[in-house]
Amino acid sequence: MLIVMKPNATASEIDAVVNVVEAVGFRAHPMPGATRTAIGITGNEGPVDGRRFENLAGVAEVIRVTKPYKLITLDLRPDKTVVRVGDATIGDSELAIIAGPCAIESREQAFAIAKTVHQSGVRFFRGCVWKPRTSPYTFQGLGDKGWEIMAAVREEFGLKIVTEAVEESHVDLIEKQGDVIQIGARNMQNFSLLKRAGRSRLPVLLKRGMAATLEEWLLAAEYIMAEGNYNVILCERGVRTFADHTRNTLDLSVVPAVQRLSHLPILVDPSHGTGKRDKVLPLSRAAVAVGADGC
Amino acid sequence: MLIVMKPNATASEIDAVVNVVEAVGFRAHPMPGATRTAIGITGNEGPVDGRRFENLAGVAEVIRVTKPYKLITLDLRPDKTVVRVGDATIGDSELAIIAGPCAIESREQAFAIAKTVHQSGVRFFRGCVWKPRTSPYTFQGLGDKGWEIMAAVREEFGLKIVTEAVEESHVDLIEKQGDVIQIGARNMQNFSLLKRAGRSRLPVLLKRGMAATLEEWLLAAEYIMAEGNYNVILCERGVRTFADHTRNTLDLSVVPAVQRLSHLPILVDPSHGTGKRDKVLPLSRAAVAVGADGC
Amino acid sequence: MLIVMKPNATASEIDAVVNVVEAVGFRAHPMPGATRTAIGITGNEGPVDGRRFENLAGVAEVIRVTKPYKLITLDLRPDKTVVRVGDATIGDSELAIIAGPCAIESREQAFAIAKTVHQSGVRFFRGCVWKPRTSPYTFQGLGDKGWEIMAAVREEFGLKIVTEAVEESHVDLIEKQGDVIQIGARNMQNFSLLKRAGRSRLPVLLKRGMAATLEEWLLAAEYIMAEGNYNVILCERGVRTFADHTRNTLDLSVVPAVQRLSHLPILVDPSHGTGKRDKVLPLSRAAVAVGADGC
Amino acid sequence: MLIVMKPNATASEIDAVVNVVEAVGFRAHPMPGATRTAIGITGNEGPVDGRRFENLAGVAEVIRVTKPYKLITLDLRPDKTVVRVGDATIGDSELAIIAGPCAIESREQAFAIAKTVHQSGVRFFRGCVWKPRTSPYTFQGLGDKGWEIMAAVREEFGLKIVTEAVEESHVDLIEKQGDVIQIGARNMQNFSLLKRAGRSRLPVLLKRGMAATLEEWLLAAEYIMAEGNYNVILCERGVRTFADHTRNTLDLSVVPAVQRLSHLPILVDPSHGTGKRDKVLPLSRAAVAVGADGC
Repeated sequence: MLIVMKPNATASEIDAVVNVVEAVGFRAHPMPGATRTAIGITGNEGPVDGRRFENLAGVAEVIRVTKPYKLITLDLRPDKTVVRVGDATIGDSELAIIAGPCAIESREQAFAIAKTVHQSGVRFFRGCVWKPRTSPYTFQGLGDKGWEIMAAVREEFGLKIVTEAVEESHVDLIEKQGDVIQIGARNMQNFSLLKRAGRSRLPVLLKRGMAATLEEWLLAAEYIMAEGNYNVILCERGVRTFADHTRNTLDLSVVPAVQRLSHLPILVDPSHGTGKRDKVLPLSRAAVAVGADGC
Repeated sequence: MLIVMKPNATASEIDAVVNVVEAVGFRAHPMPGATRTAIGITGNEGPVDGRRFENLAGVAEVIRVTKPYKLITLDLRPDKTVVRVGDATIGDSELAIIAGPCAIESREQAFAIAKTVHQSGVRFFRGCVWKPRTSPYTFQGLGDKGWEIMAAVREEFGLKIVTEAVEESHVDLIEKQGDVIQIGARNMQNFSLLKRAGRSRLPVLLKRGMAATLEEWLLAAEYIMAEGNYNVILCERGVRTFADHTRNTLDLSVVPAVQRLSHLPILVDPSHGTGKRDKVLPLSRAAVAVGADGC
Repeated sequence: MLIVMKPNATASEIDAVVNVVEAVGFRAHPMPGATRTAIGITGNEGPVDGRRFENLAGVAEVIRVTKPYKLITLDLRPDKTVVRVGDATIGDSELAIIAGPCAIESREQAFAIAKTVHQSGVRFFRGCVWKPRTSPYTFQGLGDKGWEIMAAVREEFGLKIVTEAVEESHVDLIEKQGDVIQIGARNMQNFSLLKRAGRSRLPVLLKRGMAATLEEWLLAAEYIMAEGNYNVILCERGVRTFADHTRNTLDLSVVPAVQRLSHLPILVDPSHGTGKRDKVLPLSRAAVAVGADGC
Repeated sequence: MLIVMKPNATASEIDAVVNVVEAVGFRAHPMPGATRTAIGITGNEGPVDGRRFENLAGVAEVIRVTKPYKLITLDLRPDKTVVRVGDATIGDSELAIIAGPCAIESREQAFAIAKTVHQSGVRFFRGCVWKPRTSPYTFQGLGDKGWEIMAAVREEFGLKIVTEAVEESHVDLIEKQGDVIQIGARNMQNFSLLKRAGRSRLPVLLKRGMAATLEEWLLAAEYIMAEGNYNVILCERGVRTFADHTRNTLDLSVVPAVQRLSHLPILVDPSHGTGKRDKVLPLSRAAVAVGADGC
């Protein structure tokens, strides 16, 4: 943490800040500059709440320095995580493709799509059976009946099944017959759901929240890993901006940004990321080109 | 729903779209214009999924028209909802003030603050005991021990207790000894939590999600009401934008926007909405001036 | 334009709206639906100002339908525009690469970079000599002295010169010795500068504004074309969002979105679009993969 | 500036960074912490370009500290600026109201509105005669003919005239017969126009750009003041966000944020800030309550 003093801060104001810093058990490092003094703080174990300093006399600004990640970092684990799902992998040199309908609507629909998915060599089949819907009046997914269809698809085609868990009880069900637990964008900060997924032995596909910063997203992964589950796969799915030509703005720059900080594999979802059918193909190509582990 | 054809769409393309519309059971109303034809759709009960039309030949754009609200609307209930919490009210002519610490840290802290809150005539005491925190490594609230402190504050000062439920089991606890269930911004689209709150007899304070549109927020309220709980209080707490001088951008224009559509009371939270101590007072004043029912 | 009435609008309110629509010279097409009536408007030549309708009794919402483009559209010109700059092209099957320093700092720097650019087979050399800088106290570019260096680079290496015009007088200078006029993001809606570029015989590289919607950007191109200059090249350079891991959020989905509407070529600028050196290479690859004409 | 090293940075990497810092003429202050070392930089006159450090071995992040303001700051001038326009003032204890039509459409319209404005005791009359319009095909204002009408309004009612200058030649005209030069949101970073306004003796009303941070806005004011014109009035007019219930999101928190840093007066424009007639009154009240000098 860094405390920046106002240009006209007096020596006694600077001393007072140093005293407060040391009173709460940290070390203060005053750095007098040409126009103003900054005071570095060290000795903190975790993040420091800067708000206790920002209203002291003479303080212009408090700047947070330390990033609060531990388990997701390349510092901890310099080699990339490869998530194994049976004989399939995500994060390996091979591209991982996850395909399937938005929602499972019927056995016929699911099997028809799964057949095409399987024939094209794709290993992962995704379909929602519990759908988080903005309106209470729209189709909420087939529920447990849909889950049986997913299990039948898995049996029939040997595809790895990816399904979103909307509540903790869904994780129980997925653990019995599924392969990958998806945490959706709306639940990226549903911390009790994250913790439950963190206690599972199944890999977790963690989608980025609609307005999540990189830091918040990585900390959501940290929640899962802190419970002992290290098989986390990140998935960029577009963020909310003023732009109105797509439903969300797909932020492909987050792929190399994640890779600079973390060992976790990262996928891109161009369907939700754009919400437009004719944009899926060009943005899938771009996702691969930018270095994603799949889409 | 409105389907806008391209300027050079042919008569047979227009006919084909009309046929598709009628095949799925709706009525089509073609409106030829100077430069292009638009086709209105009526006869739908709920929202129509426009994506099935937007890739038909000759279609330029599909525009959604019907808003999916029912229970929250002034159409349904022209008089404003007044939420009664014992002998206190929210939505009445009197300003409802909710005050208290961000988190309950100890019995001493809670009682000291509650005393001041009580003495200043405020009726509602807010404090988090289960805190949704971005990082798994920061203070997560006192938990059940904190909840006992809240109950003691209620007993001692007669204040109405407002606490955030982070998971469904918290709603059970709040129902036993609390007064208002808060649903936080991160859980605004945690639909199973919304439904649980909707089955409660206690009023629900629903905070706006960080990137929620007005429509999404009102539909989250609709989720609660659809379960039978009509005592919903909305609370604007700032949205996420590029602006970096405050932690969030407090969107006060949403207050009259809600009031134009809905009978539900609306509060403003300037503490979370700005994240800066010196902004709380001026923005509280502004919240009252813009017409909020409290803050 | 479409006027959506409230569910409880009376027949006489609907009639009154129809009368107002017809009084201002348009045709009204009422479409009674299950829950509400919508009124389509045709007969307008250009965009209609909807605000004159939205406060009439019984009106819920006014929705704009017609897009205001003319010259940029595929409706007007179904074949893609290829911009010719001497013997080089932009918009052709070949990828157009524009390279160079952010600002020209000295003859030595410019020549050293130009030599590398030239040797790698790139045809376009970009460098700012008049820099639009956020602060008045930072380096504003070499100005006319820099312009002489650019002209010398052009002479020496046969590279096509791309420079930003910050004011109209710069267009005069670029016309004498340059090849492509760049309009920067901050000036995307500097309409007098756009009109001046529209009266030039040189191609114009039009960068997207930091918060420009697709429509606003295409209309800025329309300003240039309306003056007679059809050689407009669009350039995506990132938009402003809450995301803080890059300086701007590069919006690659805008490339296919432009290509669906317009015949103009489109480039991507990953340097300004991310503001991070290590992101330039992966996002250049992604730009090519998504279908951009160059970067 | 602060350079944050990676946790696993070696002593020799830290030394190498210190050497680079000192080689470019600054002083380096290494601060070893529990988990990582940070290096403070002092001795710089203005902002330092951090990008030259961020790719050195072992560097995790570079954080800018010094704010680049000079003339706008309370450090420079602790008392609030009161802008005098003849016998009227902005920034004084009295509320300054600026009223008038968006555009001057005719002499009759202008005089009718001016009469009402005058009778209600308002001192400032605003009207556009040169309109910056998103589309080249919509009404661009009456131009010089409109300017004559404005001058006549000034003569007739004694109102102070506020008009937007879209190009430098408009400043010449306003200087002859006007009172306040408005710089619009789209031109907030049209630096040659800012400099021209800075060489005028008339006050300048500087609107915030649609995606301008507080820092960028204050630096635009700094551009005007650096040319010698200290009579700058800031005006918040809404920023661009994902929210779609208003045309822009009015950011009232920027009012106290400006007042914490700067002595300049600040107004709020709720008409452009919301784009909805029924929102103007509540948000005008909120603007006054939050502490704006007028609206």
